[in-house]
Amino acid sequence: MKNTNKVKIIPLGGLHEIGKNLTVIEYREDIIIIDCGMTFPEDEMLGIDVVIPDVTYLENNKNRIRGLVLTHGHEDHIGAIPYVMRKLDLDIYGTGLTIGLLENKLKEHRLSRDKLHVVNAGDVVKLGKMEVEWISVNHSIPDSCALAIKTPLGYIYHSGDFKVDFTPISGEPINLTRIAEIGKKGVLAMIGESTNVLRPGYTMSESKVGETFNRLFQSLQDNRIIIATFASNVHRVQQIINSAEKYGRKVVLSGRSMVNVTETARRLGQFRVKKDTFVDIKDMDKYDDSELVLITTGSQGEPMSALTRIAYGEHRKIQLTPNDAVILSATPIPGNENAVTKVINRLLERGAKVIYETLSEIHVSGHACQEELKLILSLVKPKYFIPAHGEVRHLMEHAKIATQMGIPEENIFIMENGNCLEISQKEAKLVGDVPSGNILVDGLGVGDVGNIVLRDRRHLSEDGLIIVVITITKEGKVVSGPDIISRGFVYVRESEDLIEDAKNVVRKILKEDSRENLKDWNGLKSDIRDNLRSYIFKNTKRNPMILPIIMEV
Amino acid sequence: MKNTNKVKIIPLGGLHEIGKNLTVIEYREDIIIIDCGMTFPEDEMLGIDVVIPDVTYLENNKNRIRGLVLTHGHEDHIGAIPYVMRKLDLDIYGTGLTIGLLENKLKEHRLSRDKLHVVNAGDVVKLGKMEVEWISVNHSIPDSCALAIKTPLGYIYHSGDFKVDFTPISGEPINLTRIAEIGKKGVLAMIGESTNVLRPGYTMSESKVGETFNRLFQSLQDNRIIIATFASNVHRVQQIINSAEKYGRKVVLSGRSMVNVTETARRLGQFRVKKDTFVDIKDMDKYDDSELVLITTGSQGEPMSALTRIAYGEHRKIQLTPNDAVILSATPIPGNENAVTKVINRLLERGAKVIYETLSEIHVSGHACQEELKLILSLVKPKYFIPAHGEVRHLMEHAKIATQMGIPEENIFIMENGNCLEISQKEAKLVGDVPSGNILVDGLGVGDVGNIVLRDRRHLSEDGLIIVVITITKEGKVVSGPDIISRGFVYVRESEDLIEDAKNVVRKILKEDSRENLKDWNGLKSDIRDNLRSYIFKNTKRNPMILPIIMEV
Repeated sequence: MKNTNKVKIIPLGGLHEIGKNLTVIEYREDIIIIDCGMTFPEDEMLGIDVVIPDVTYLENNKNRIRGLVLTHGHEDHIGAIPYVMRKLDLDIYGTGLTIGLLENKLKEHRLSRDKLHVVNAGDVVKLGKMEVEWISVNHSIPDSCALAIKTPLGYIYHSGDFKVDFTPISGEPINLTRIAEIGKKGVLAMIGESTNVLRPGYTMSESKVGETFNRLFQSLQDNRIIIATFASNVHRVQQIINSAEKYGRKVVLSGRSMVNVTETARRLGQFRVKKDTFVDIKDMDKYDDSELVLITTGSQGEPMSALTRIAYGEHRKIQLTPNDAVILSATPIPGNENAVTKVINRLLERGAKVIYETLSEIHVSGHACQEELKLILSLVKPKYFIPAHGEVRHLMEHAKIATQMGIPEENIFIMENGNCLEISQKEAKLVGDVPSGNILVDGLGVGDVGNIVLRDRRHLSEDGLIIVVITITKEGKVVSGPDIISRGFVYVRESEDLIEDAKNVVRKILKEDSRENLKDWNGLKSDIRDNLRSYIFKNTKRNPMILPIIMEV
Repeated sequence: MKNTNKVKIIPLGGLHEIGKNLTVIEYREDIIIIDCGMTFPEDEMLGIDVVIPDVTYLENNKNRIRGLVLTHGHEDHIGAIPYVMRKLDLDIYGTGLTIGLLENKLKEHRLSRDKLHVVNAGDVVKLGKMEVEWISVNHSIPDSCALAIKTPLGYIYHSGDFKVDFTPISGEPINLTRIAEIGKKGVLAMIGESTNVLRPGYTMSESKVGETFNRLFQSLQDNRIIIATFASNVHRVQQIINSAEKYGRKVVLSGRSMVNVTETARRLGQFRVKKDTFVDIKDMDKYDDSELVLITTGSQGEPMSALTRIAYGEHRKIQLTPNDAVILSATPIPGNENAVTKVINRLLERGAKVIYETLSEIHVSGHACQEELKLILSLVKPKYFIPAHGEVRHLMEHAKIATQMGIPEENIFIMENGNCLEISQKEAKLVGDVPSGNILVDGLGVGDVGNIVLRDRRHLSEDGLIIVVITITKEGKVVSGPDIISRGFVYVRESEDLIEDAKNVVRKILKEDSRENLKDWNGLKSDIRDNLRSYIFKNTKRNPMILPIIMEV
């Protein structure tokens, strides 16, 4: 008889990449989904809004899904849910802020919030034959958890995103005691995040940033202070509130997501704040510069964010003055460096003081560095280890650390999205792949933009396009055209000769081709395309898209 | 009588930006140009190859130009010369390698090399009423110099790009003695590079990298070693040669610019290398892995570079094996981080060892940090100071340092490209602007791609385009169409309904419009555009470019 006493681990996102985290855990007929995140498009994905994981495998196994369990409320863990929910009817479990943020998101997408379930750290939810336990950890958003999933073969430990912070701003330090207990009971496999694995040592405590804020508030007594940070970093906002209250300033929020997240966290009782600390942006003028601190979005230089609009003088309510001191309390995410630098330069040009990472300690990461990763590995003591949430270089380095910690190399699996790891009492092995990949979201379209569309966008973006239009009768007589229209290629007014010569290239083809050929439209089109391409390239060293259009009358 | 005893300093590039350095120095009727560099396009300059400075001002003052003097041979100092030479007939002066590299460049562009003049550090060239002296400095390319320009009002000191390296690989340390002498004689104004001004302390000596290479060569005894670095960093290549010879390896060069620059430097006697150290790439197979080191281009993840092709398995002569150790001896230039990371991940996926900056000390900068900048300021003792080569944040920080060094704030000028600083015996002041800006080079076109073309490329790149074609008789009767063609928008096959409905939107307009209106083509086109845009946006939340084309028969 076939041994069915097996656990399967199938990552559908988050491996060989940072973002769109989604892991599938299976035991016999039961499927649990851990997280369902999105990621931002790479540079070459022109015009794409967000990228989500391919969930074909889950669609094909709908009836086996017992629930989606969430570690925390960041976009790369919950951002794909509105898209996936249209295909899968899911019960969703998460902690207070996680579900609170998800609710906002589903409201925006006009989707049902009926199957959301709030859990607390320490809760255990039975899903099919498996049990999921939430264990609190520290991270750059409150209510973050690791997950211990009890299966008949032992625990699966999923680290979530975490750091070890012994002096966190609110709530408890990471629950090392419970992690140790789970480790002692026996962990079959651990899935461990790898974001900061290339950094030696420990990540600093969030409370370090508060000390810096206090120093800055003291030295910037006369200035209006503007601080940009991640809206979801509730503890960072709490620390700004603390400094504001300490130094007698009111707090003004700016930016849609800053207002939304802060409201949600307040509703959930996550802020310690005096009754009159918050001031509405429209009442800001009642206060002196020295009595205000503004907290805004835009720490990543996002084009439409509050800080960017402030920097470019386009914010309707906040005008920058030389008495403003702007603090960027965040590190640029790889790829955003230039955007952030531009905002900094604009702020400086407009006379503001700017305090940012290169010059000061105003940000700490939310992810564990090498020594913290070792600490967790030493407590969890997994039999099998799967480094996750990272590019290859991160996964490999995490594997190296696990080896140093005594996990045999053959028990460590550097997996790819779609790989299926099957674990029995006896062994663990890769047993083939399920569909996986990037689904591109562009406007309302989910997955309708693929390689051909992207290739065309790329082509159009580089050298523009030339359209050639000709009207031909059924008998093959040219009655109108060739007309040439171009966009994104050259200034037509300054290139009249080039366009006229291009028309002559087409006229020559029309003359040379016999009447019969003029009825072979495909042949005619490719003649026009080829001749025009080589003429244009020879004269401009550019390669625009060439679109011949033939109208029949 | 008007006092004409004045010096003018006019930067046409390199201020509020990193790159395309060009500074104009004037005394009465004489103009000297310092450097003439290019820069790479920003993300939003779609399809652009390089960016060069606007030299309209120089074209308008052709007869006054006495010469172009070069500090060193990097692209951001010499890269615009082939384009500017087409408009200006220039005598060009520079040190050996600088002119050697420029010669290669002009050969490629099929331009005359008749007016190039080689100078040595210490040489003085009289240009009109001014005299230019080259002073050797340390930098990441040999033969780098600062310039002391003697005018009747005192010296203008231009720092060039530099660092202070007391143990450089070849040649002399920066000539501090001569700089001190010039300072003592009296420097009217100093133009100082600011690239590394945000970094405290000192830049490490280039020779530090050699120590790391030796350690790596020792620990990688059995591996084939592949090192990617900047082709122009001749001293880095020299150090690789040193380690290769020490540990008994042959050196193979890969990548067009690596081969070209190294040949040029060899021809100029800039390498110390044994007769049989270099091996041609086609003879590589005669040697074991342990007997080879490959030096390649591609340290910035450039798509067509040798290292990228190796990483993607597309190099015709170099196949990667798990016995390869790849060293990236460079820091990613801002904006290139993601490209470099991708190459690293691909190399790791193919089983190679990869050693890069985050993990090891295998690169040092070529630019002075804060303490070095102070050292030079303390020797030059300029009356007026102009921080240059940097974004606003760099210029402001450099100004701050100059203030700390005792230069009065009112004697420090944070200038912009095109600003004109006029200095007399009595005072210095900004006296208006000359034309300046970015000239975009796309293929053979210099300056023919402007904002409208870029805006169209941007629009096309985001949501593609829809073309609507209709054939109408002179009497206003529709005889063919509407046809709809789209590119970069959606997969047409999966969106047949959308396209059919879009046609109906157009048909409705054609029906509603009276015969007279159908002759008002502009009105008809804008009706089609507006109606189609709102239909498409409502149904897809996308905003493609819409091009109505009406053919008359």
